[in-house]
Parts: sequence; structure tokens; C-alpha cells
Amino acid sequence: MGETPERKKIVIDTDPGIDDALAIFVALNSPEIEVVGLTTIYGNVYTSLATRNALHLLEVAGRNDIPVAEGSHVTITVCKLSFTTRSKIDQSATDFLIHLANLYPGEITILALGPLTNLAMAIQQDPEFPRKIRQIVLLGGAFSVNGNVNPAAEANIFGDPDAADIVFTSGSDILAVGINVTHQVVLTEDHLNQLAQSKGKFAQYACKILGVYFAYHHDAYSMRGVYLHDPTALLAAVDPSLLTYTEGVVRVQTGGITRGLTLFDNCKKRYGEMNEWFDKPKVKVAITVDAPAIVKLVMDRLMG
Amino acid sequence: MGETPERKKIVIDTDPGIDDALAIFVALNSPEIEVVGLTTIYGNVYTSLATRNALHLLEVAGRNDIPVAEGSHVTITVCKLSFTTRSKIDQSATDFLIHLANLYPGEITILALGPLTNLAMAIQQDPEFPRKIRQIVLLGGAFSVNGNVNPAAEANIFGDPDAADIVFTSGSDILAVGINVTHQVVLTEDHLNQLAQSKGKFAQYACKILGVYFAYHHDAYSMRGVYLHDPTALLAAVDPSLLTYTEGVVRVQTGGITRGLTLFDNCKKRYGEMNEWFDKPKVKVAITVDAPAIVKLVMDRLMG
Repeated sequence: MGETPERKKIVIDTDPGIDDALAIFVALNSPEIEVVGLTTIYGNVYTSLATRNALHLLEVAGRNDIPVAEGSHVTITVCKLSFTTRSKIDQSATDFLIHLANLYPGEITILALGPLTNLAMAIQQDPEFPRKIRQIVLLGGAFSVNGNVNPAAEANIFGDPDAADIVFTSGSDILAVGINVTHQVVLTEDHLNQLAQSKGKFAQYACKILGVYFAYHHDAYSMRGVYLHDPTALLAAVDPSLLTYTEGVVRVQTGGITRGLTLFDNCKKRYGEMNEWFDKPKVKVAITVDAPAIVKLVMDRLMG
Repeated sequence: MGETPERKKIVIDTDPGIDDALAIFVALNSPEIEVVGLTTIYGNVYTSLATRNALHLLEVAGRNDIPVAEGSHVTITVCKLSFTTRSKIDQSATDFLIHLANLYPGEITILALGPLTNLAMAIQQDPEFPRKIRQIVLLGGAFSVNGNVNPAAEANIFGDPDAADIVFTSGSDILAVGINVTHQVVLTEDHLNQLAQSKGKFAQYACKILGVYFAYHHDAYSMRGVYLHDPTALLAAVDPSLLTYTEGVVRVQTGGITRGLTLFDNCKKRYGEMNEWFDKPKVKVAITVDAPAIVKLVMDRLMG
């Protein structure tokens, strides 16, 4: 894990969360990247608990050197620009993201693992922010498949659809990793047993928290295994060649029964009339994934 | 084409329209079915022109014995129950559909080739209507693919999203044939040349009207061929074994940027909270199609 000039600088915007915890652990054991900070957001838990969990995970990892900036407690529709809170470092998540984007222009990759409020606020606060960062890799959306909150919506987008629409149309280089992809990446009970036999502290910790996650998947999906949502998004940021993607315009439905739906336009048809996708910037949407490679990397880096 | 007891009684609710015309011609040359009437609806054209076109097509076919009932001129949101017009036969489309459902209980298949206003009005007027008919085979929706009006919506559903949602949740036996399926069924320039060499009156007429349809597809999709939307739906009603389908709940988004979107719930996940799909009746949604067989049947019956 020696410093090399090529290490990608990554900020993880996160709502830990069991699979967020796995992703953070994998990130900290990924020599290809440098985690320059965590920012927190509500989602799996409230933002204040997300912050506490983030600090706790870094302590478990012995990485108290990594700053944690607390993010928004509410969606962008309600809070707009004025609502930020003080945090572990004396800077809101939004301010911290803008600070990093200015400090390392063109170098910062933001891994967004929760609702996109912090990022949307950064975009509203600094219109140049989308072009100052290198890439946003976001875990979100359900492209051509059912959602996981309801048949239409995936949880992170559902958490703040307005913020998500701002981010998707911001002009940033965006790679969206949706549940159409992460549902292909499953950690099985055999993997869990291997983790249990490992002496690694990340593996040990993962075993403690994964039980409830297995139970949830059994209840909700009748499966014996868990989806590796957040670790898949993390590894997509680490090594984009683990996925393939397509390019097009994504808009988010912000009201009605499909609130939180991500609608991808493949831009193949010339429509007769203008529409809400026309002339908006294209983003990358992951479509296939090397699931065995992802699972192996997650296992290696949790046990390493 | 001798009368046999097994011939399926079909009403075609239609907005002709070029590919509606093809479907009507194919229907009239399909010995498996008995076309007991046409009802008209706006869509490709206004309802009054749809009625005129329907009457004209029947005249070309020498089938003035088939009644045509004129349907609604406006969407159900605007018109509700009171707005109907007089027509070729002295009965609105809605009244005619209800009349047929009572006359032949459990026997009527409705082939819906346009926006679903007439059907939704029949359902509102007679709550038992959905169970009195045999099946609704509808051309509509874009399941897991982009729409053809805009990236979210297919034209027939977009034409009256509220009516479509009423129909999809009515409890009728419904087979939805969306553009995810009909875009697999393409009539090529070679087929057009074969039609041109045929002496059949349907083939001759088809050639006259298909030129503008080929031009549209070249403009909109950069393709040399035309999608056989309506004939595919017709043949799905004639012989369901030409398609495979999946079952689940379909709801229609009625506002916002994805207005007219058809959202299919495959009912595989147990969601933590109630949602707008929960406990609604399941419908059949076509997913694969024997495209060569459909094209061959269309060609045979247009030239026959």
C-alpha cells in the first residue's frame, strides 16, 4: 500500500449501514486508491448516526487520520442551501467536498453510497463543482428492473429524488451503479464461513454485522446470500474495467407513484417533440459486472 | 373461412392509422377469429377521422356487415362518463362494448390498438365489465425499454394514462403487448416488394399506405423497415402461442416527466411497506415473440 502518484483520490459519501461498512473496509485495503475523506448522509440511518458509525468504522480500522464531514440531515427539497451542521471536522460535507474539489482540481472521485443531497448542495453552491471533480461513482437507480423500496424506486434515489435529478443532469462525469448490476453480486453463506475463519479484523467485524443482513435478504428475497451493493460501487471506482456501461441521459421522476424512478434515455430515437431528456448531459450507466471478480476482491480485502 | 364454433369473437378498438389498417386487414383474413365490431378512438388521428378510416377500410375489404361504433374524442380525465358521440351505429363505443359483453358473456376478446379511453369508460360504467369479457389484448406500454413518444412513454398509454391505469388494475384478463416486443417485429423493404407484386387487394392497399411509414422509421430510427406494432398485437390475440409473457402488476404514472410510463412489478420482492402495486390484480406482459412467424402470417394474410 505504498504511496504512488497514480493513487486515485476518493471521497466516500456514505450512510453506514452494513454494506457501506464493507465498502469502507474494502476501500481502506485497496492500494489503488487514497481515501481522502468520508462525508455522511442519512439513508440506512439518520445522518448523525451515520457520522458516528463512520467515525467508529475508521477507529476499528485504525485510520483516525481520515477526516469525516457531516452531511445534510434532510432532503434538498426541504433544506435548500442554508441547512448544514457542524461535524467531526468543522466543515459541512458540502463545504468539504467543494474544498477538496478546489484543492485537487480534476483529481477527486466521489463515491456516493447514499441519497445525493450533499452532492446536489455542492452543485448548487458552486456551479463549477461538476467540472472540478474527476468523477462521481454513485450507487443508485434501478435501470430497467424493479426498485428495492417499491417496484419503481431504488433506496438511494428515493431518499432524495430532487437531489438525484440535479446530480444526474449536472454535467459531471458520472458512473451510476444501479441494483440492476449490484443484484448480480452476491456474497453467500460459504463466503461468510470463510470470513469467520479469517483472523483479519475487517473480516471479523464484517461477520458480526452480516447476520442481520442475511436475515433481511432471506425475508425480502427468499435468498441465502446478500447483495454487495456498496462494495460493488466502490470497486467500480477502484477499477472501472470490472464493469461495462452504456451512455445516455438519466432523469429522475420526483412525484407520483413512481417517485424516485430513474429513467434512462439511450438517445437512439429521434423524437418528434422536445422532451425532458433532450440536450441534457449524458452519464454512464453500468450494465454488466464481473461478479466473481468483485466477490473475490471483496473477500481478499476484507481478509487481508 | 367457414364458421366454426371455436372462432374467437374479437372487437378491435382502433385509431387507424397505417399499422392499424394492416392489423384490421390481417384480422379479416384470419380464419381463427370473428371480428364482431370495430370501435374507434383518437391516437394516430382524431376519433372522427378514425371512424371514417375504419369505415373506409371495411369498405375496401367488402365487409360493410361489421359494425363500427365511434368512441371518445377526449381522454377520460376530461370526459369522465358523460361524453359520448353518436356513430355509424347508433351506440357509443362504450355502450357497444358493454352490449357485446352482455350478449356473449365470457366470449369477447377486445383488441385495443389505441389509447384505452373507451375501455376505461366501459369499466367505470359497468363494474362487472372486466369479468364479463374473455380477454383484453392491448398494444401499449414500454416495459424496461424507452418509449416512442418520449424516453418514458409509449404512444397509446401516453394518450390517456389515467384510462390505462384503470384498465391495467381492472381485474380483467389482460395481455399487454408493448414496444419492447413489437420492436422485434420488422417488415423490410424486401417484404414491401413482395407485397407490391401481389394481386391481393389488401397487399395492394398496404403498399399504397406503407411508403410514408417507411419514411418515418428512417427518420426516427435510421432503419430501413417498419415495426409491425398493431399486427403483432392482433396475432397475439389470434394465437397466444406466438408470444411468451410474464405476470405481474402494472401501474401507470399519470403525471410528471415520466407521465405515461408503464411500471411492471414482477412481485418477486416482499417490500417492507405498502405500495401502489400491492394487492392489485396481475396482468400478462409479453416478453418474447416469434417474430419470423408473425411477419410470415402478416405477409400471407395480406396477400391471401
